Amino acid sequence: MADDIVFLSEGTVTSPRGFLAGAIRAGIRPDVDKLDVGMLYAEAPCAAAAVYTSNRVKAAPLLVSQKHLAEGSSQAVIANSGCANAATGEQGLQDAREMAELAAVKLGLAAHDVIMASTGVIGTFLPMQRVRQAVSDLKLTVEGGVDFARAIMTTDTRPKYCAARFGYGGHQYNIGGVAKGAGMIHPDMATMLCFLTSDAPVAPAYLAVCLREAVDASFNMIDVDSDTSTNDTVVALANGLGGGEPIDVDHPAAGAFHSALTAVCIHLAKAIVGDAEGASKFIECRVEGAASQADARKAAREVVRSLAVKTAVYGQDPNWGRILAAVGNSGCQMEETKTALWLSDQCLYRQGQPQPFDTAATKLHLGQAEVCIRVDLGLGDASAIAWGADITEEYVRLNSAYTT
Amino acid sequence: MADDIVFLSEGTVTSPRGFLAGAIRAGIRPDVDKLDVGMLYAEAPCAAAAVYTSNRVKAAPLLVSQKHLAEGSSQAVIANSGCANAATGEQGLQDAREMAELAAVKLGLAAHDVIMASTGVIGTFLPMQRVRQAVSDLKLTVEGGVDFARAIMTTDTRPKYCAARFGYGGHQYNIGGVAKGAGMIHPDMATMLCFLTSDAPVAPAYLAVCLREAVDASFNMIDVDSDTSTNDTVVALANGLGGGEPIDVDHPAAGAFHSALTAVCIHLAKAIVGDAEGASKFIECRVEGAASQADARKAAREVVRSLAVKTAVYGQDPNWGRILAAVGNSGCQMEETKTALWLSDQCLYRQGQPQPFDTAATKLHLGQAEVCIRVDLGLGDASAIAWGADITEEYVRLNSAYTT
Repeated sequence: MADDIVFLSEGTVTSPRGFLAGAIRAGIRPDVDKLDVGMLYAEAPCAAAAVYTSNRVKAAPLLVSQKHLAEGSSQAVIANSGCANAATGEQGLQDAREMAELAAVKLGLAAHDVIMASTGVIGTFLPMQRVRQAVSDLKLTVEGGVDFARAIMTTDTRPKYCAARFGYGGHQYNIGGVAKGAGMIHPDMATMLCFLTSDAPVAPAYLAVCLREAVDASFNMIDVDSDTSTNDTVVALANGLGGGEPIDVDHPAAGAFHSALTAVCIHLAKAIVGDAEGASKFIECRVEGAASQADARKAAREVVRSLAVKTAVYGQDPNWGRILAAVGNSGCQMEETKTALWLSDQCLYRQGQPQPFDTAATKLHLGQAEVCIRVDLGLGDASAIAWGADITEEYVRLNSAYTT
Repeated sequence: MADDIVFLSEGTVTSPRGFLAGAIRAGIRPDVDKLDVGMLYAEAPCAAAAVYTSNRVKAAPLLVSQKHLAEGSSQAVIANSGCANAATGEQGLQDAREMAELAAVKLGLAAHDVIMASTGVIGTFLPMQRVRQAVSDLKLTVEGGVDFARAIMTTDTRPKYCAARFGYGGHQYNIGGVAKGAGMIHPDMATMLCFLTSDAPVAPAYLAVCLREAVDASFNMIDVDSDTSTNDTVVALANGLGGGEPIDVDHPAAGAFHSALTAVCIHLAKAIVGDAEGASKFIECRVEGAASQADARKAAREVVRSLAVKTAVYGQDPNWGRILAAVGNSGCQMEETKTALWLSDQCLYRQGQPQPFDTAATKLHLGQAEVCIRVDLGLGDASAIAWGADITEEYVRLNSAYTT
């Protein structure tokens, strides 16, 4: 069996062996002191996998990256903030291809070994002269992981990064990640981006399966404002420099790798919600007793999505009817008389009946930075957890006060 | 052919022949001067049809009304604000049945001839002693339609009512309606309610078809905050007192009745959006050139639902990327290079390319009380229109400042 998973202090994408990163201010964003182009480089070819936005409008860098990844491996990432390079037509595709080519030439790779990502305003073009200069000047180091996390920030107020480690058969394997949020909405049109690295010798097909499942349990279970951007991208690169046999689904360490990747993704997903635009509270909703996994996911996500629930949490209002209505609205199978509902440890509704509860204790819980909602559907064994942020006047102010 | 449809000045549910209505303050709501119980009575048995919430949590009055309507006809409505009678278990069902019985006794009807509706806080019980007294004291008159509209208001700032008329074969037929909105969210947990009356001799089966289609084109195309309440109900009663042959799908006036009912529903749906909690602007989105009607509806609804679009409109920001992203997010079939997008008469995006546009004129349009968005998907002939409200700091304040 594999060892326990431990999180590394100050871990990031350069914590796994053989990854370098760096960032620079190209001047794509107007802020004078904001890093806006970042690069990540693997010293050995990597198994690579990616999960992209479900939005039908797909940004140019995403379309080009999809083609590059179809070649099966990858060794570098170049990313920018300040411009999404989305809805930019043929010029946008040309710019995205050039961006990959610039990184490839710098690193001595083929263009198809480079993955691109852009985040920022839709419908504007990349200032390519600035990008060219930036790629030329950018330095890659083993300490560059946090700067890389800073370069992809838009309305995020802090960089988001972490790394986890597990051991198996005398090998120590690391998984690192950086992400940005924080609400698809601001002037900078947020976009969720996440880049994951590992030195574990993961087989490409198994990496793709693990990534899809990790994303489903993490980034697909968070809600800031229900919108999906044109640029959402999660990429995983594994260079195998940790040594050992390829980790495939049958490998004894397969479960540990899957768990560690999921843990890193959940950590980053919660960091995105914790930094949501204008939010004052973090909401966790656990749905159990669902008839199916799909039902549990739907119900948990709808509770953290509902504006009625978000505003009640913001107002510290134990208005559990809004939670029950959100569950009913999710389309999950439910029977009122079998449903029970808790805020923290207080049961507010059970067997089709409102329950007497300690209003003072419940309001005290709603005054905390993290609010826990639990719903038992009483129908089966499936469960799921979703995370969301409340919605505040500040959110509206942030998202409307800007003019293009 | 039937005559044109005309809207009546100050028309309401009592504009069609043979309908009486009234309202009274029972004291269910704490406000001292708010009418909170209303009744509607038809002097002749009616063909009746209803459309209910899709929420899996259904309020007691709705469950009882469904049973009563299954008997095939109806002759009265009793409705209250201040208490949703939802999530109230067996006691709630008993109270709903008693409410119907009280109305039936007063009007000399069978209980199954009465439809009930409640709107207000979830998880509280009806104060039945007050309801009994109110039903006993309530007066029904031909002038009572507007008071009935007032009695069902919760966070609405004004009553919503209208009536339309069309002629055929020497007969004048009237359709009246009242509705309430305004956001499923406030302390009073909004709920959308609508009651429609007509003196046209509509056959019950055709009334059901017309009502479903009218609701799809009106109340199902508006968005305030994406939540569906436990009590949403639309009821239509047609007493036939306008005379003439039964109007069925083959009748020459079938189309006129369908159009008039739809026009009344759209008028009331737009009134709900126009009175949305804390809204400052009315948003209309027309999607055309869709591959299917379902696609056109999905895309139009997603544009008016998107918080990114709502906040951009509030901020008078011509950030068309948010609109394009919302269309892409809707799941409708689309190709970027075939899509075009307008704000008022300014084309902002066409053939996969941002278009130069008159920023001053566009901002001026975004400063108006009504903002028009048009999207052409360039794929087919289907179109749809959806209506929504922007979202403001005031919306958040209204929905969080309350404590149960």
